[in-house]
Amino acid sequence: MPRHVDEIGSFDLETDVLVIGYGCAGAAAALEAARSGARTMLLERAGGPGGSSALSGGEIYLGGGTPIQRACGFTDTPEEMAKFLLAALGPDADDEKIGHYAEHSVAHFEWLTEHGVPFKPSLWDSPSWVPPSDDGLMWMGENSWPYNEIAVPAPRGHRPTAEGFGGRLLMERLAAAVSAARVDARFDSYVTNLVLGADRGVAGVVARRYGAEFTVRARNGVVLTTGGFVDNEEMLALHAPQLVGLGKNSDGADDGRGILMAQAAGAAVKHMSAGQIGISLIPGMIARGMIVNGKGQRFINEDTYPGLVGQAALFRQGMDVWVIIDEQGYEAIPEAERWGVRPTQVADSPGELAELIGLPPSALRSTVEVYNRHAKNGEDPLCHKDSRWLRPLSAPFAAISVAAGMNAPAEGGVESGKGASVFTIGGLRTTVHGAVLDLDGAAIPGLFAAGRATSGLHSWGYVSGTSLGDGTFFGRYAGRAAAGGNGTP
Amino acid sequence: MPRHVDEIGSFDLETDVLVIGYGCAGAAAALEAARSGARTMLLERAGGPGGSSALSGGEIYLGGGTPIQRACGFTDTPEEMAKFLLAALGPDADDEKIGHYAEHSVAHFEWLTEHGVPFKPSLWDSPSWVPPSDDGLMWMGENSWPYNEIAVPAPRGHRPTAEGFGGRLLMERLAAAVSAARVDARFDSYVTNLVLGADRGVAGVVARRYGAEFTVRARNGVVLTTGGFVDNEEMLALHAPQLVGLGKNSDGADDGRGILMAQAAGAAVKHMSAGQIGISLIPGMIARGMIVNGKGQRFINEDTYPGLVGQAALFRQGMDVWVIIDEQGYEAIPEAERWGVRPTQVADSPGELAELIGLPPSALRSTVEVYNRHAKNGEDPLCHKDSRWLRPLSAPFAAISVAAGMNAPAEGGVESGKGASVFTIGGLRTTVHGAVLDLDGAAIPGLFAAGRATSGLHSWGYVSGTSLGDGTFFGRYAGRAAAGGNGTP
Repeated sequence: MPRHVDEIGSFDLETDVLVIGYGCAGAAAALEAARSGARTMLLERAGGPGGSSALSGGEIYLGGGTPIQRACGFTDTPEEMAKFLLAALGPDADDEKIGHYAEHSVAHFEWLTEHGVPFKPSLWDSPSWVPPSDDGLMWMGENSWPYNEIAVPAPRGHRPTAEGFGGRLLMERLAAAVSAARVDARFDSYVTNLVLGADRGVAGVVARRYGAEFTVRARNGVVLTTGGFVDNEEMLALHAPQLVGLGKNSDGADDGRGILMAQAAGAAVKHMSAGQIGISLIPGMIARGMIVNGKGQRFINEDTYPGLVGQAALFRQGMDVWVIIDEQGYEAIPEAERWGVRPTQVADSPGELAELIGLPPSALRSTVEVYNRHAKNGEDPLCHKDSRWLRPLSAPFAAISVAAGMNAPAEGGVESGKGASVFTIGGLRTTVHGAVLDLDGAAIPGLFAAGRATSGLHSWGYVSGTSLGDGTFFGRYAGRAAAGGNGTP
Repeated sequence: MPRHVDEIGSFDLETDVLVIGYGCAGAAAALEAARSGARTMLLERAGGPGGSSALSGGEIYLGGGTPIQRACGFTDTPEEMAKFLLAALGPDADDEKIGHYAEHSVAHFEWLTEHGVPFKPSLWDSPSWVPPSDDGLMWMGENSWPYNEIAVPAPRGHRPTAEGFGGRLLMERLAAAVSAARVDARFDSYVTNLVLGADRGVAGVVARRYGAEFTVRARNGVVLTTGGFVDNEEMLALHAPQLVGLGKNSDGADDGRGILMAQAAGAAVKHMSAGQIGISLIPGMIARGMIVNGKGQRFINEDTYPGLVGQAALFRQGMDVWVIIDEQGYEAIPEAERWGVRPTQVADSPGELAELIGLPPSALRSTVEVYNRHAKNGEDPLCHKDSRWLRPLSAPFAAISVAAGMNAPAEGGVESGKGASVFTIGGLRTTVHGAVLDLDGAAIPGLFAAGRATSGLHSWGYVSGTSLGDGTFFGRYAGRAAAGGNGTP
């Protein structure tokens, strides 16, 4: 529960803008608040910067004609980018946030490079979670059905120049920029309560460091960039029960604390049951084969962004899914893209394979038969997979259990044994400028938020790069707004 | 936002227990509070009792060996009833609430009959939303896969003795009982704010009647039985966007006001994206034919409870679904069960039918072929429909658009033109005894709730009878607890 200024007496510390949480959103908020001339303090519960952002793949969703897109030969516009995001992050994605995000995406690219984040002008051109390369650009489903009919396709996944997972590099560069700016960053500092002023606005916080309580007054505003709630089992059960029991993409500290503190101060939340589902499969395997449900049916074009496959598999098929591929398809996948995943069952026919894995044989037989009949002509009337990936499957056939999992080649990646690694994408209801709204839709004075503590661009859909993307983008807006500006950097 | 006692001065009215909302949960809470000896007041915004309960089908989910079950030749136990509910209302249904509900279900049946609600000892034995008869008992999917393997099947849908929709009779009888009890029921009275006492507990309310504000002190407790939030478009968009744009099963006043007032006083909510989906189709038609998705695939055993078909169709297939039946199946359905629904397209083969309605022809052809091959042997390895409904389909084939809708033969029933009529099943987080919990899981003093203002037995699944069921059952508990007892009637 929040405390009140009357109880606090005098605060131990004072600042203009206080940012809580030092992942990518917190770094962006602190940088922009400091740039606005505000005295800025950043409290982080861990011993150093990074948070879950540093463990991520590092992709940032950017477009509208960035230098990297242009260097790779793609034209793009904010309008086409917004059309894609509205479709892929929906239904009911935040069109106002998406509009701002797309319109200022090139400027945000420039901001990132100014702060030292490097991107290489080369394209990775195949479905993947995290390519085994340092290519700076990748597709996030823009060239897959139905998105290729909704918006002019352009790749918009921008990757910091690292082999594989780039989140650590991103956070190293942002943290170096924070260090160079006038930001008072304090670690091992866990915020326990917001402090409300006489106007019910947020006036500061109570925190703990090595067991000792201290208070901080924030003259202008508090920015919550505390992450999501995938590590809070009770919140998951209350709001996103389908995510319970799956692996977690987090640094272990995404306990929803910031969301709860804001709610206790009257804040509203939004889309709390939504999640990103990093399903435990190799995108190149389903693109070359198929994914089927427990009835042996295909349910999605397998060449789309794998997170969308994961959401369909969990929310629509209850994660009762199998990867089916033939030997020729499996062998075509370079070793570096296999992440050690091997067939779990092999058989000479779809019917026999179905028997082995407990699917209705006549159904899987018919699924492969219909697939092959059309694949021969480069067509997929059922799911609209691109002809590039279509070829009749032939014996021997293999099945791969998604539940058996896989091991990502880097820390924090898609991992093993539970079918998927997930994080939450619902959270506090905020304006474009990061003001936290109460149950009546009015801004709570002095309280701002960004990143996965908020409901951002998304409602239900998700593509990689939109969390680091909206975290840094709206983190900047929130930092600027908390400093007293109009929010727009 | 809540008001504070200090601002109120002296209250206009005083009572021991104040119940807000006069549907089935409010009636049950008021009756039990009054029976406990508490002075009880009931405020209802409409001009008379009933709420959405009065517009419903009237089914009440009861079992464990009720006199009606026994008279129809069924044995049942609380254990089997609980097993079914845990499976059908899950995943993550409230096992503590379900345990109480099943254990005391026969006693709740007796309470209802004591209060004048009649049930006839005869069974309606076919899938239906609301049977065109006054039979007192019906199946709610207990005899369908997988529930018939999870729990010993027994029908538990108890229907007040009315031809068709029984909600009005139920509420007439409960309202008559409330009138006979010492309950001060006041109509046209819209509660606008909770009033908090010095201990942050709820001390009363502010309300309006014909534009004039008045205040009520509740010495022992306030019970919120204000219904769900299907009529609040903003709350739907924030929490249950998949329900936006569908028809509404409500009296038009399910605006989530009670949930919001409690949240503003610190209450937590649970499972806010869940909903009952009254899909616009005739259960007897899909049982005799099939329901397919936009890929021409079956996705559920069509003889299960139709609300579960509706949830699968909306949440898993995006409501992109079609009813497929042959002439023989259609003709076998009695006129009274058709609710005026007629084929929208007819063709001589599944492939031609698919062309007409825009499905992939090879897929629907293969679906019907696999279905027929097994139906001949009375088997359905894909979806496990009971052999009673299995028969190879033959030309001519018909399609029925779910989006085209239908008209229920009674007011407030499943209606037309939007694919489904829905209501919300998430809400306030409460204990078994109706205490409203805050974000830390602690009870808010003086605040109780029941019915669709709360998350009840359910998490995501739903079967008919569990709303009137948990509303009346936990309404009784909440009324008793608010009166100062231990909650258990």
